[in-house]
Amino acid sequence: MRNIALSLQYKGSLYHGWQTQENAVTVQQLLEAAIQKVCAECVAVHGCGRTDAGVHALNYVCNFNSQTKIPDEKIPFAINCVLPDDIRIMTAKTVDDGFHARFSIKKKRYIYKILNSVHSDVFMKDLAWHYRRNIDMENVKRACDAFLGEHDFSAFCASGAQTNTHIRTIYSLDAQKENDVITIDVCGNGFLYNMVRIIAGTLAYVGDGRIDADDVPAIIESRDRRLAGITAPACGLYMAGAYYDFDIFEG
Amino acid sequence: MRNIALSLQYKGSLYHGWQTQENAVTVQQLLEAAIQKVCAECVAVHGCGRTDAGVHALNYVCNFNSQTKIPDEKIPFAINCVLPDDIRIMTAKTVDDGFHARFSIKKKRYIYKILNSVHSDVFMKDLAWHYRRNIDMENVKRACDAFLGEHDFSAFCASGAQTNTHIRTIYSLDAQKENDVITIDVCGNGFLYNMVRIIAGTLAYVGDGRIDADDVPAIIESRDRRLAGITAPACGLYMAGAYYDFDIFEG
Repeated sequence: MRNIALSLQYKGSLYHGWQTQENAVTVQQLLEAAIQKVCAECVAVHGCGRTDAGVHALNYVCNFNSQTKIPDEKIPFAINCVLPDDIRIMTAKTVDDGFHARFSIKKKRYIYKILNSVHSDVFMKDLAWHYRRNIDMENVKRACDAFLGEHDFSAFCASGAQTNTHIRTIYSLDAQKENDVITIDVCGNGFLYNMVRIIAGTLAYVGDGRIDADDVPAIIESRDRRLAGITAPACGLYMAGAYYDFDIFEG
Repeated sequence: MRNIALSLQYKGSLYHGWQTQENAVTVQQLLEAAIQKVCAECVAVHGCGRTDAGVHALNYVCNFNSQTKIPDEKIPFAINCVLPDDIRIMTAKTVDDGFHARFSIKKKRYIYKILNSVHSDVFMKDLAWHYRRNIDMENVKRACDAFLGEHDFSAFCASGAQTNTHIRTIYSLDAQKENDVITIDVCGNGFLYNMVRIIAGTLAYVGDGRIDADDVPAIIESRDRRLAGITAPACGLYMAGAYYDFDIFEG
């Protein structure tokens, strides 16, 4: 039995997120169906985390056990043939039995894209948050630093989330603007439900002056969701990386 | 009566090109319907040229006569509200009576995008030509120079095109690669039917070695369509600019 890790790219606009659920089409469900078709076996794919409806992935990691004899390098070609064209396997690698895409994870990276322009962009439809009010990048960058390190991020967590602790560590948080597109790039040991989207919404409010950049440390410390900015829409969010003790797709 | 020029952006995937036709949805038809809704008058919009089904526009220029009292700067907001979200008016400007988007044109610019990678990219679906064979950019760049200047481009014209002459002047033709995306950028005084797509197909063949870069001048001179490369698919083509005696959207 092989333990096969996959790196996926998907455009989430048409899907109700990663995780299989009743009465909605999800990425996990379509991927399992595609593997079943190609490998002629029923598999359960373990994802590196849930993504919400409409959220995209640049590098989503998952794994499954299989008896297939298809060599690693041919797996993407074989399965991509039967996947819809908004889901792509980029790499496949047979890994140690102990590897689990979710439980073995050490670090995650997300990207959030804001289109900051008067008119929307037809090529970024469903791929960024269209935000008309002018965002001052100096203020945004200043606010980013406050998030770094270990904090209780209760102010940046949607209600109803089930988790033991709201303490997470953010290793890096950057915001860059190129033409009209602001890219927020965040890396941490884990993220609470909607945490990246609330950070993005808060940075947008800092950028347009509705929140003072200097108040962000106090907002984090307050652990009060009402003091942070809005939850930015799912369409701007990209799962950008899952990191483990070793680089699973190398060597 | 005002003569109003518009600059448009559109994603052409769902449309049968610019020009109104029976039994197919086109950009011109939807734009005229949107103007009629907002301005309460029946207008004929003159485009700067036809685009094929699936071709996109970054900066498509058109004009129409209207009695509307909406100020120029408010026209995009008013009409965009009733346009589908894959068609956007970026700018509107009242211009001289004599201006005609097609007849006044001096120069046109097109961009052609090739995704040169093993696996497709879910975010570039319908937005680039996915070309798997490796393209050597040195050879492509060397071939570009042969197209510059005035030539009879019969070898780069789809059959069935109705035009008096196949002589056109190309002012610039560049190809750049960034990550896996090759962008071909071409500017000329006019283009024959499918000319940019045949140039793109020829450059791809030069890049993968099926055509020798040194043979391109002879292929142009031959005026024989069979010697050039294939017609690259419509999805990679972007109408990128229409230029006139004066910058219509300035001042």
